[in-house]
Amino acid sequence: MRTVTFIPGYRKIDAEQGSTILDAAQRAGLNINVVCGGQGKCGKCIVYVRSGKTIFDQQKYKRFFTDDELAQGACLACQTTIESDLQVFIPDSTSIQEQKILIDGQETAMEFHPSVRKYYIELQPPTISDPSPDLSRLLWGIQKAGGPSAEKIYAPLEMLRKIPAILRHSEWKATGTVALVPGGYRLVDVQENDTAKRLYGAAVDLGSTTIVVYIWDLVTGKIAGVASNYNRQISCGEDILARVNFARKNGLSKLQALATESINLAITTASNTAGIDREDIYEIVVAGNTVMTHMLLGIDPAYMISEPYVPVVRRALSVSTGRIGITCNPNGGLFVFPAVSDFIGGDIIADILACGMSEKEEISLLIDIGTNFEVVLGNSEWMFSCAGAAGPALEGGEVLFGMRANPGAIEKISIEPGTLNPLYTTINGIKPQGICGSGLIDLLAELLCTCVIDRTGRINTGIANPRIRTNSHFPEYVIEWANRTGIGKDIVITENDIKNLIMSKASVHAACVTLMNQAGINRKEISTIYFAGAFGNYINKKNATIIGLIPEISIDKIVNIGNGAVTGANIALINRRMRKTLDEIACRIAYIELNAESSFMDEYTSGTFLPHTELTLFPMVQKLLDTCRITKE
Amino acid sequence: MRTVTFIPGYRKIDAEQGSTILDAAQRAGLNINVVCGGQGKCGKCIVYVRSGKTIFDQQKYKRFFTDDELAQGACLACQTTIESDLQVFIPDSTSIQEQKILIDGQETAMEFHPSVRKYYIELQPPTISDPSPDLSRLLWGIQKAGGPSAEKIYAPLEMLRKIPAILRHSEWKATGTVALVPGGYRLVDVQENDTAKRLYGAAVDLGSTTIVVYIWDLVTGKIAGVASNYNRQISCGEDILARVNFARKNGLSKLQALATESINLAITTASNTAGIDREDIYEIVVAGNTVMTHMLLGIDPAYMISEPYVPVVRRALSVSTGRIGITCNPNGGLFVFPAVSDFIGGDIIADILACGMSEKEEISLLIDIGTNFEVVLGNSEWMFSCAGAAGPALEGGEVLFGMRANPGAIEKISIEPGTLNPLYTTINGIKPQGICGSGLIDLLAELLCTCVIDRTGRINTGIANPRIRTNSHFPEYVIEWANRTGIGKDIVITENDIKNLIMSKASVHAACVTLMNQAGINRKEISTIYFAGAFGNYINKKNATIIGLIPEISIDKIVNIGNGAVTGANIALINRRMRKTLDEIACRIAYIELNAESSFMDEYTSGTFLPHTELTLFPMVQKLLDTCRITKE
Repeated sequence: MRTVTFIPGYRKIDAEQGSTILDAAQRAGLNINVVCGGQGKCGKCIVYVRSGKTIFDQQKYKRFFTDDELAQGACLACQTTIESDLQVFIPDSTSIQEQKILIDGQETAMEFHPSVRKYYIELQPPTISDPSPDLSRLLWGIQKAGGPSAEKIYAPLEMLRKIPAILRHSEWKATGTVALVPGGYRLVDVQENDTAKRLYGAAVDLGSTTIVVYIWDLVTGKIAGVASNYNRQISCGEDILARVNFARKNGLSKLQALATESINLAITTASNTAGIDREDIYEIVVAGNTVMTHMLLGIDPAYMISEPYVPVVRRALSVSTGRIGITCNPNGGLFVFPAVSDFIGGDIIADILACGMSEKEEISLLIDIGTNFEVVLGNSEWMFSCAGAAGPALEGGEVLFGMRANPGAIEKISIEPGTLNPLYTTINGIKPQGICGSGLIDLLAELLCTCVIDRTGRINTGIANPRIRTNSHFPEYVIEWANRTGIGKDIVITENDIKNLIMSKASVHAACVTLMNQAGINRKEISTIYFAGAFGNYINKKNATIIGLIPEISIDKIVNIGNGAVTGANIALINRRMRKTLDEIACRIAYIELNAESSFMDEYTSGTFLPHTELTLFPMVQKLLDTCRITKE
Repeated sequence: MRTVTFIPGYRKIDAEQGSTILDAAQRAGLNINVVCGGQGKCGKCIVYVRSGKTIFDQQKYKRFFTDDELAQGACLACQTTIESDLQVFIPDSTSIQEQKILIDGQETAMEFHPSVRKYYIELQPPTISDPSPDLSRLLWGIQKAGGPSAEKIYAPLEMLRKIPAILRHSEWKATGTVALVPGGYRLVDVQENDTAKRLYGAAVDLGSTTIVVYIWDLVTGKIAGVASNYNRQISCGEDILARVNFARKNGLSKLQALATESINLAITTASNTAGIDREDIYEIVVAGNTVMTHMLLGIDPAYMISEPYVPVVRRALSVSTGRIGITCNPNGGLFVFPAVSDFIGGDIIADILACGMSEKEEISLLIDIGTNFEVVLGNSEWMFSCAGAAGPALEGGEVLFGMRANPGAIEKISIEPGTLNPLYTTINGIKPQGICGSGLIDLLAELLCTCVIDRTGRINTGIANPRIRTNSHFPEYVIEWANRTGIGKDIVITENDIKNLIMSKASVHAACVTLMNQAGINRKEISTIYFAGAFGNYINKKNATIIGLIPEISIDKIVNIGNGAVTGANIALINRRMRKTLDEIACRIAYIELNAESSFMDEYTSGTFLPHTELTLFPMVQKLLDTCRITKE
């Protein structure tokens, strides 16, 4: 046994000789960035060995390091084995930090018809001439207080065991909690005396990266508290593929427990902030992608990551929170959004609910971009959907200085024509550490409009400007000089990064066009494009159009709906009528498998130009590029 | 710590000094007869201390013993404390023995529409062009195989967790089990390959004394096995009152566990005999009185034993067998019959199902007699019910030589006019040990017809016959002389026993008349009288009429339905249509509280003659008694 001490924090943990630093760090409860799930492919888990002996192949992984870094003991935590007692430094950039989260006050816009209600009742005690059973007495009381009719309310065994003592101890004054469930109503709680004002519900966006929880006061219809934290499953792999592989190897239970723990943590934070008792939360509504919700429920996701990509279940599910380990009222209900397929999950159904496209006559296009992207096209009559791997480029992966939307990320950027100096803002306003998705889209559009790159994405190395140079492999544009960054290195974008970005945006555009072809409509028939997802909320609509990420429509018809998953979960939590429509919406959506559509590849190839091979599809962009060129000339 | 050795069997157990012999015997797993629940009131728990020191108040309890017995070390196990190591003899009469049980082959008479079905299906594996979820694929398969439509089948979490591995391991050949549940269907099992022929259900009569289990093959509609055993709760008190008091003092969990254990034992015996795997039993239907079913489900029965006699729940309940600990398929369903009130339980609803009175236009009277009796009057339109304490007299209690229907009990008896010698049969044909309920009714009728007793129940001590004598307290009739019995004592019936019997039969008759008055009908409008319960099955219909236990109607219109509880449970198990009507039947039955009906007391008083004060209500009996008197003269 060796002892590993992690700094800062000086957390110590025993580890087997020959095991990895990553393993020790995870067991120590430290959250290390492992995009690739610990395969040595992403280069994100850089740590510094300050003392002690390790084995690490510097030659094999040198592409991830500067010479300086290697000299200081940098290595990949996942590829370094422990050979003696160690002291290991984890830099900030390797720790997973809380992310910038979308939280808006949405309470005014939604209809309020919650699925769970409380009824305070004062009952007549039984007499020899009215010896009705306790349950009947209680349910009749609820019915008289405006609740559903007694015979429609199902009372589970826990309640039958609880009722007699409660009623007698409180001298026949009690509060009954009744929830609308598939096929009727369910008595979910009976409490002594009047607790009718203490009734809460939680809407959860179960993202693979971030958990967002809204707690609603289900009596007043107001938001009581909000919290978010990263998904603890990240310690088992950053992307879904890595996590499913982890589950295949180690079983599903750890991932299930981490999902539950992540939700519980957010619920606890939000409850504590709002000063409410978690026992008073009776309902949890969860929207998440299909793999995430399978994992939460302990249902095997193994068959979803390879052909033919088969989930176990698609329909909406209602289970008892106690079965999943969610800390709220033990008889509370957990409602999980339905999915369309492996790739179109409950999060997308929630987006649809949030933007309301399934209720409208006019045709909408919904795009949710993350590591993967999902596209839905349609209206109240029909809907087509598809999904694809954007590659992590648009989330800041596969780009040398790409990063998630963490503090220090360049989120908006413009380039001054002529000087080619950038103007940018970073998250939290600190020195830049990298560039996140919305910044990359800006950058691509700006580089194009300033003719630093041409429509194929090639950097014009003929431009005499210190910011344009060629490193050992590729031409690159220097966004910021080392001394003005938070990382002590020049922050650049390389021609290779640009190539990756163009491939990503081409995929998204090709997906949109494939659905349009399927529906037989052209871009002019689309009344609104909705961007969903945390990324979508910060996107510059014009720049997204300029690079050809989306079909060109009038900029004012592009709407950022922000975190549609949590908005949809909120709607389903507080509006029983909308919740009832979910399975029906999910059934109405046709899923188009892009790999099975020959036209998709053609569309993709046509999209690997900026904005597109066919400039006439982007008349506004065409005009703009003409103007740029004129300005330059 | 003291060691107590029980003989025969030489079972040893450690016991605290000062604890009771009863307590030690129960912990040793010995089943001691404790009618009063261990209060020293019934005198049934007689044991003999063969060696060692105990404390027992002989003076206080001497009414239960002969001098001889006391000399031999007899004491009440419940009232004797352990003071040193002991050797204790438990006589046969104190052990609870297996009882004579009603088991008839009823399979031909019932409609067969079980609630649970199996479907063997061979599925197409998923492909990229058909990546439907595993659940949809399975449910469509079931629908195609003749099952309910896929969207009506609810799949619980356990199934979702199980399905993917099962389907792939068996190469998409599987058997799905679907049960009809309130509000739809439930997927209760998925197994590899073809198991469609292995599908069983169990019908349970959960009696306070005896558990009877029928196992049905739910594919062929045939009975696969039958078993019965006594209810293990007897160790906590013989009658329900004693058991509820036990639960109040010690909590409900032991009684619940004993109920489950008793059912499991019978299921195991029946399964083993039939050679079936208990995992293949998917459904359990339980009929029992209201206290028994509350206890089985772990619902507090405490408020049912005193005014105003309030149960917690009355409606039919469906719970998972796993929650109760029944050993069958872990996803099996347990269906518990509904009740009308505290006193009219699921066993009586089962009786109603068994005799079919709720389906008939003509008026029937149903009487179920045990320690308590229940009476139901009505037809397909209306029903009235009531219940009362018959006193244990009719079950052999409160009668000096009364006993349950165990081996050695006199079950039929007639008395030869003139000699007054009896002719009797005992259960199992062994030497008589006492007399059980059906024997007592015969005896009462015979003593009346031979003028040994008059219509008030007084013994005519003027008759010069050695069988008629007066003991220290009461006149008595000697049924059998000591040397011809199995107990070495004269078996007698005393005038006091007869008084108790008359009070019991008067209660039953008064209850019948009270319901008839309520419905505004007279005895001539009753088309059939049904006797239910183990006791009812052995009753001599004519003698029951002679003593005035029931209103007089034509003897051939009296029907013994035997164990109606298990017959009703069988019907509900194999006929889904009948099961659905149960809550409706229970709701239709009005419950009449006899104590609240002033006329009941009057009717009772009128009934304390043989057969009744008003002989004109019993024209056949009147004629018969006239004949007897003539014969005697």
